[in-house]
Amino acid sequence: MASTFGNTLRVTIFGQSHSEAIGCVIEGLPSGAPVDEDALTAFMARRAPGQNAWSTPRKEADAVHIVSGLNGRGETCGAPLAALIYNTNTRSGDYDLLRRVPRPGHADFAANSKWHGAQDVPGGGHFSARLTAPLCVAGGIALQLLGRRGVRIAAHVAQVGSERDVPFDAVRNSEESAAHLAEQMRALATADSGAFPTISAKAGTRMAASIDEVRKKGDSIGGIVECVATGLPAGVGSPRYDGIQGTIARIVFGIPAVKGLEFGAGFSVAELLGSQNNDPFEMRDGSVVPMSNNAGGSLGGISNGAPVLFRMAVKPTPSIALPQQSVDLVEGTNSTLEVRGRHDPCVAPRAVPVAEAAMAVALLDCMLASTTDRWDDRL
Amino acid sequence: MASTFGNTLRVTIFGQSHSEAIGCVIEGLPSGAPVDEDALTAFMARRAPGQNAWSTPRKEADAVHIVSGLNGRGETCGAPLAALIYNTNTRSGDYDLLRRVPRPGHADFAANSKWHGAQDVPGGGHFSARLTAPLCVAGGIALQLLGRRGVRIAAHVAQVGSERDVPFDAVRNSEESAAHLAEQMRALATADSGAFPTISAKAGTRMAASIDEVRKKGDSIGGIVECVATGLPAGVGSPRYDGIQGTIARIVFGIPAVKGLEFGAGFSVAELLGSQNNDPFEMRDGSVVPMSNNAGGSLGGISNGAPVLFRMAVKPTPSIALPQQSVDLVEGTNSTLEVRGRHDPCVAPRAVPVAEAAMAVALLDCMLASTTDRWDDRL
Amino acid sequence: MASTFGNTLRVTIFGQSHSEAIGCVIEGLPSGAPVDEDALTAFMARRAPGQNAWSTPRKEADAVHIVSGLNGRGETCGAPLAALIYNTNTRSGDYDLLRRVPRPGHADFAANSKWHGAQDVPGGGHFSARLTAPLCVAGGIALQLLGRRGVRIAAHVAQVGSERDVPFDAVRNSEESAAHLAEQMRALATADSGAFPTISAKAGTRMAASIDEVRKKGDSIGGIVECVATGLPAGVGSPRYDGIQGTIARIVFGIPAVKGLEFGAGFSVAELLGSQNNDPFEMRDGSVVPMSNNAGGSLGGISNGAPVLFRMAVKPTPSIALPQQSVDLVEGTNSTLEVRGRHDPCVAPRAVPVAEAAMAVALLDCMLASTTDRWDDRL
Amino acid sequence: MASTFGNTLRVTIFGQSHSEAIGCVIEGLPSGAPVDEDALTAFMARRAPGQNAWSTPRKEADAVHIVSGLNGRGETCGAPLAALIYNTNTRSGDYDLLRRVPRPGHADFAANSKWHGAQDVPGGGHFSARLTAPLCVAGGIALQLLGRRGVRIAAHVAQVGSERDVPFDAVRNSEESAAHLAEQMRALATADSGAFPTISAKAGTRMAASIDEVRKKGDSIGGIVECVATGLPAGVGSPRYDGIQGTIARIVFGIPAVKGLEFGAGFSVAELLGSQNNDPFEMRDGSVVPMSNNAGGSLGGISNGAPVLFRMAVKPTPSIALPQQSVDLVEGTNSTLEVRGRHDPCVAPRAVPVAEAAMAVALLDCMLASTTDRWDDRL
Repeated sequence: MASTFGNTLRVTIFGQSHSEAIGCVIEGLPSGAPVDEDALTAFMARRAPGQNAWSTPRKEADAVHIVSGLNGRGETCGAPLAALIYNTNTRSGDYDLLRRVPRPGHADFAANSKWHGAQDVPGGGHFSARLTAPLCVAGGIALQLLGRRGVRIAAHVAQVGSERDVPFDAVRNSEESAAHLAEQMRALATADSGAFPTISAKAGTRMAASIDEVRKKGDSIGGIVECVATGLPAGVGSPRYDGIQGTIARIVFGIPAVKGLEFGAGFSVAELLGSQNNDPFEMRDGSVVPMSNNAGGSLGGISNGAPVLFRMAVKPTPSIALPQQSVDLVEGTNSTLEVRGRHDPCVAPRAVPVAEAAMAVALLDCMLASTTDRWDDRL
Repeated sequence: MASTFGNTLRVTIFGQSHSEAIGCVIEGLPSGAPVDEDALTAFMARRAPGQNAWSTPRKEADAVHIVSGLNGRGETCGAPLAALIYNTNTRSGDYDLLRRVPRPGHADFAANSKWHGAQDVPGGGHFSARLTAPLCVAGGIALQLLGRRGVRIAAHVAQVGSERDVPFDAVRNSEESAAHLAEQMRALATADSGAFPTISAKAGTRMAASIDEVRKKGDSIGGIVECVATGLPAGVGSPRYDGIQGTIARIVFGIPAVKGLEFGAGFSVAELLGSQNNDPFEMRDGSVVPMSNNAGGSLGGISNGAPVLFRMAVKPTPSIALPQQSVDLVEGTNSTLEVRGRHDPCVAPRAVPVAEAAMAVALLDCMLASTTDRWDDRL
Repeated sequence: MASTFGNTLRVTIFGQSHSEAIGCVIEGLPSGAPVDEDALTAFMARRAPGQNAWSTPRKEADAVHIVSGLNGRGETCGAPLAALIYNTNTRSGDYDLLRRVPRPGHADFAANSKWHGAQDVPGGGHFSARLTAPLCVAGGIALQLLGRRGVRIAAHVAQVGSERDVPFDAVRNSEESAAHLAEQMRALATADSGAFPTISAKAGTRMAASIDEVRKKGDSIGGIVECVATGLPAGVGSPRYDGIQGTIARIVFGIPAVKGLEFGAGFSVAELLGSQNNDPFEMRDGSVVPMSNNAGGSLGGISNGAPVLFRMAVKPTPSIALPQQSVDLVEGTNSTLEVRGRHDPCVAPRAVPVAEAAMAVALLDCMLASTTDRWDDRL
Repeated sequence: MASTFGNTLRVTIFGQSHSEAIGCVIEGLPSGAPVDEDALTAFMARRAPGQNAWSTPRKEADAVHIVSGLNGRGETCGAPLAALIYNTNTRSGDYDLLRRVPRPGHADFAANSKWHGAQDVPGGGHFSARLTAPLCVAGGIALQLLGRRGVRIAAHVAQVGSERDVPFDAVRNSEESAAHLAEQMRALATADSGAFPTISAKAGTRMAASIDEVRKKGDSIGGIVECVATGLPAGVGSPRYDGIQGTIARIVFGIPAVKGLEFGAGFSVAELLGSQNNDPFEMRDGSVVPMSNNAGGSLGGISNGAPVLFRMAVKPTPSIALPQQSVDLVEGTNSTLEVRGRHDPCVAPRAVPVAEAAMAVALLDCMLASTTDRWDDRL
């Protein structure tokens, strides 16, 4: 079931880049939770294309139509919540050649090998990054529920090419770093919607310049998005395959262009000793607190009370204007391709809210699943 | 459902480090496939502890008892295959203190927060790395089926601390690199079981020395395991959440100690241009072939005919003999802990067959799911 | 996940009686299958309300909007197929009283106990029989695919009150009965859309009269729907919980008003001897054929080559105009209720295509799952 | 996934009649629940064969070995609970002929059509009624948890041939009937283990005599088992496909020999008017109570506070000593078969605890799922 994820909270994504609509169905939302559609619209706007120099000129309002799942008071009613986003700005003519000449870096050839020509080609079909919009619908709603339980989530572009942003202050786990991290998150949340989503404005300026430079050359560039969640209590998650890491991973690797995911110290653990990597515990105000956070908030799949922290690597947008070598599937010959159409020169900035959505849906799923952890009076 | 993974091929893992047995149930194996129990035993031996200087002195034969799922000819019979490994060498006395003083880097505190003391503590309970043995049972069987379809899988320790092995020749995708890669894989497969699992024997010697050094200091060290699969035809997998990457990710992040996963060019995509990262296509012997393999064999979740390549980062074993700061959960005070017991000073070498098992189960699951891709005469 | 069913073919239903739209998402359809939207419209028309004396006067065109999942040639494209039916004729005012006085025989009180007032009340919300429309969308598409593989499905009203129709000739399994059954099915398929869906026109006339009689009294009446499928080869299905019977049962018991389900000889097996109930085998034209069909086409969850046959009991519509005793949830007192609004006096006739849809989706799911039964050259 | 059921509580069954062991894995049990192994043994004894005149002479102790999932105090520990029952008394020689001559009424031919000879034939393999033992393990544990929350479950043989037992007093829903029902359930629970499981001892005597009579003739006979649960609060369950009815149905239709299932008034609803079938509500001691129980305790898939009541029809044991017509699959000719071996002449008595197990697992699953119904302070 390729387009569904989650266990207690289950999200099914549907749609193709140029189909009549894209959308999602969310099952398992507890009833009685108010859904603020204005806040959802604002969250969606952060992912929407056409806003600035570093994103595709394809403009889509990405207006969300919730067609079921709410009661008359705008609360979840216990039934599945279905939401649609209509595709209004499609130019299928741009894509006709792609049926026979697969674009390097895209799923065209792989999909053709799987579906023998039946796949919907225009705009990348079901593979389009546009399908992250329904994920953001689910994530935007999950963020609202989590927010009322004190869980905050933020992401930023940590790297584009060789330019790096200041990281989240989430590796130390002192009161001082907690305050600093909260400040970083607040700044990101309240930034101007046109601003480049970095903690350091200077880093953002440099990244935007890098992106503009590759765009002018008809090229694209990769990046890294870092995402953090605070306020998740210890004890949420599950051992092994549906833990915090696994639940996030399943969603994140469903985001087009993602080629890597790491938690906490991530790949740098290869060079650490146990005495360096282990996060010691201390008592703080009567509570057990990890003193550092190389674990990224998850041990054995279960939250340990520290911020949940992941970084995901997004490859350079495969659609580039430069000529590339490909093949003509009809002729069986080599061929040269120049991809036309409207494309982001760098995926990372628009992937920022997508990372937050992935984190939010995953954590809410884990929190809901945890209600049956313990045989007590509630059961 | 924390201990289950897979869709068409579904594996359920059970057991605790010191329970009577650990094991797995595998559903969805096609009937009529011969299972070579000797080959399975040989595969299990590669993960088994107590073999050499760099692994825990706990000795477990890890003998696999298949109690159901085979017919009288030793073939899969269509019913679920259940396998047990009895725990024969348990020393629970080592772990009593851990009920009140959680080990840094372990799931002790997280599990206690989740289950309020009901968790099975000895040996890490269900969180133990010992639970990778049932994954290897499933993987060992999947490897046999895949092997008969021409899919080969191998892994090696790519890095321990600052020591690095030669990488798989799987980024280029020429005939020459294919031959070279096949040779690398063959060498790993036929190496002496006591050898350090690296492509370069010299790198292995250096890594073993590094591990021995940290062991003597009562410390541990992290590493990276690289895994490759060849022979998978293009078109296997699914878009989005159950694709090649996502299916592998869900299993890999269920392996204790894994903190990062990347495919193909992985995190280095952040520094690449699209014109560098895209893998061009060419015709070779009448077939479409990607000329390089930054994608790691998967585009949009679907195989593109190139080798599937992932690397996973494993943290240093959290159990170290050095004193560490922790807390006493009963007294509510800070406390110092020295973890006794028998532990690997580096997880990476024994994680090599585990990575292969994860790859095998994931790819077989994807292959089985692909039988319904196309509405043709078989349906 | 209350609103999802199926394994290899997975259907998610959404919507409430008075939400903006109802619909479904279908995952797992093989790619390249043509979807005939006209045939689907015709199938939907058989369930649509407002057509005749025995159904609710609420008129809904039930026009199906497929918003994703097809390629430009009208074939399935491998991506999830999402379909919407907009709710155009809602009169929520009819239902305001029901918030405090639950209707006997309806889910009002049960839903209020579950969701504490957050449920969507108007029209029965997510519990409405209207939600069988999206099931019919999935079923209508499944019927098209099955039809191209020689599987035919038909249903009729077998009983209303004490009036009974001629049963399907599906218990004997001779060539003669096969021809007779085919004729019965053809007659049902080609009947005038206004006709009462019975094999015997006379029985239909009597049933329609019975229904009209209870309607005039402000009452309602129950019934039984019988459904048959022919052409399913032996060997489709699975042992135990996802077999032919279980897969059908899970869908059928999700149809509002269903209180019973039986296969083949059904409840009458209680009075049979093994020597009477067992279906002997014989060779016929070189094939093994069961000589009778008390099994209803399924043994151990797997098809045996005989017609699949089930009967489902549907209770009388709970909404009746007669005064009924209930309670006032706000006042905590007994209360009397007369249900107004537009309601079918008998559910059975409109449940006929719903039964066919349930059979079709279940059998297609089982057929698709069977592609991995056997380890052979296709795998 | 044919051998798995449940959502929040998930049970996977494995084993064949003559494999080394049969068993189950139970995931999703809340931690900290004490498991009384003696009580489980006593529950298993009610299903075990070889006890009396009306069951198979095959004797199996059916001793349950819980190999994982408990902590040192005998409580659930949060990890999957795996249990094995070793097959000690297998006589495979009895079954050799069945490879070529399928037994009428058995899954032999259907399984052979599915698995092309790879299925495990002896004793019916995975189709054996023996596989209800692991279901009883899961059910026996679920019963213990439910019992501590005031949910009581009982079943009896309601019919064998033309002999009928007194029904449960669960259709009326008065205080008087509640007391009567409680008495009926208590009597069943405390009956001598050798007694025929009926409410009326006389009916049991007549049924036992009927069974003995058909046994002597080498024949078998069918029956009906009725099962009831009291104490389930209103509001448990889900709309549509995973409701009380659907969850029970999925398990019940996985029990070999079941050909029908009905809830409350069941198939008799066909002859009822809405004014007869609807269960009116009244206030009783400040609570809303349905005054009758034609619904069988479930409306729209959700409990309404009345007893949950189902009946399941079990066919006569297909294995009979009388000669039956079958075919020789090797020769392709008609053939006559006399089934030897040890078989129950009537499945119904031993299906009584199996029905209770199905009810228990289903209701516990629904109760656990209901913890996330409502967005409140627990979430």
